[in-house]
Amino acid sequence: MSYQYHVDGELVPAAEATVNVRDRGFMYGDGAFETLRIYGGEPFEWEAHADRLQRSCETLGFGNALPPVSALRERVDETLAANELSDAYLKLSITRGVQPGKLTPDEDVDPTVVVYVSELPRAGVEGQRVWDGPASLGTVERERVPDEAIPADAKTHNYLNGILARLELRGSDHDEAIMCSRDGYLAEGATSNLFFVSDGTLRTPTADLPLLPGITRDVVRSLAEAADVPVETGRYEPDILQQASEVFVTNSTWEIRPVTQVDDKSVAVGPVTSDLQERFDKLVESFY
Amino acid sequence: MSYQYHVDGELVPAAEATVNVRDRGFMYGDGAFETLRIYGGEPFEWEAHADRLQRSCETLGFGNALPPVSALRERVDETLAANELSDAYLKLSITRGVQPGKLTPDEDVDPTVVVYVSELPRAGVEGQRVWDGPASLGTVERERVPDEAIPADAKTHNYLNGILARLELRGSDHDEAIMCSRDGYLAEGATSNLFFVSDGTLRTPTADLPLLPGITRDVVRSLAEAADVPVETGRYEPDILQQASEVFVTNSTWEIRPVTQVDDKSVAVGPVTSDLQERFDKLVESFY
Repeated sequence: MSYQYHVDGELVPAAEATVNVRDRGFMYGDGAFETLRIYGGEPFEWEAHADRLQRSCETLGFGNALPPVSALRERVDETLAANELSDAYLKLSITRGVQPGKLTPDEDVDPTVVVYVSELPRAGVEGQRVWDGPASLGTVERERVPDEAIPADAKTHNYLNGILARLELRGSDHDEAIMCSRDGYLAEGATSNLFFVSDGTLRTPTADLPLLPGITRDVVRSLAEAADVPVETGRYEPDILQQASEVFVTNSTWEIRPVTQVDDKSVAVGPVTSDLQERFDKLVESFY
Repeated sequence: MSYQYHVDGELVPAAEATVNVRDRGFMYGDGAFETLRIYGGEPFEWEAHADRLQRSCETLGFGNALPPVSALRERVDETLAANELSDAYLKLSITRGVQPGKLTPDEDVDPTVVVYVSELPRAGVEGQRVWDGPASLGTVERERVPDEAIPADAKTHNYLNGILARLELRGSDHDEAIMCSRDGYLAEGATSNLFFVSDGTLRTPTADLPLLPGITRDVVRSLAEAADVPVETGRYEPDILQQASEVFVTNSTWEIRPVTQVDDKSVAVGPVTSDLQERFDKLVESFY
């Protein structure tokens, strides 16, 4: 299938969707993005994603150049309409664009806005998962970039840290890399947040650690509270996963993806994970 | 002046030099580059730059996809010829290109190679500096990304760390940001290596710290040795710059750029800096 992307205000065939090589997104990864899931034509958690995009751009010093949320939403809707998609993966990118000079950013920003899209199966109660099976996690040596170097709560085009983490998994049967902070605490996966159950409590690394506090992570915490499952955020060493009764990872595309392997250890898919998946599916079903 | 860039094997006008939005260089900063200075039609320290580009690509796991050095050199030469330039700034970028899937890199790489160019004045003994005046340094809070997160000796398209450092200087009269390592030692500028003179010794942070060991940095160390100036690499705290008798920064474009201000303190341009500049100019003169 050949998609239309939205680039700088125009819909263009994906193969012809380009940016200038002087775009700072290309030269320096100087941009921010959001990955969204579209259910029944509606972007899930749109406001939370739009807010985070705004905050990421503010961290990068061009928050004032972000088009109004309504204009961004219009581009999203136009892209979905042009591709006749109601269930989709959608990525919304904004970069500092082309500027004169070299590394030092100019205050005058004409941003580059790109909307990428691709079809996904229908989700919800009768839906289909986007992943082939549960995740297998490998804890890697690569450390998460500390906040003091690049704030982890900004979702930017600088993604080499996660790429290097995933490269460590080459040749193994793991498909998600779990990184720790410099001081050795579990942080997050290359593209996911980590959850695990131990002693009946659902636990996830605290956002005080260098991690992107995912929007799906927030939804899952709310669902757990509604289900009377105690939730704790904290600092955990990797060994704790070996004692966990359940493990899962989350992101906007995967939703809640069970984990059945952590390094050499097998984990079963347990009742907390299944219950949360069911609740998530019901929430999504309301979009259809 | 309208330049021709070399993109994926073809010369194109700079305004039409584009990459697909799915290029991993754009989406993730998943690429490496070199910035070179061209003197009298010859790339300065070509082999050192080509070697480092190779090493950067190896760090990113696509060293095998880099075209042979002779093919890269051909693109460089074609770009210079098409633009009729013999004194120039030249940037050679290579990214992992467009791949199926998402973050996990595919082993099969069709890289995107881009050569950027722009005119510079003639350098050497009778030459002209590219900078308007000496540099003013501001030491910033932003910490250099540690090697354990992303190896600093790879020159990649992930440049937000340096951009955030430069943003801290907004509203000040400083034009280069000096970052420290997490443990508080001077590392490097956003786009330059740092040198200073104290007790008659030329000092520069050790490459054991998270910094890009610049090619100009190596040239300058050799020139200092030839001039019988003792050279030391080490771990230095920022305060040491307040006692330095001379300070300068180096990169391929700036060559040796004297520093006359470090935070609130003025520094004079001293004899070691001037002597090294003279030696550098003489070295460059051999290209004309």
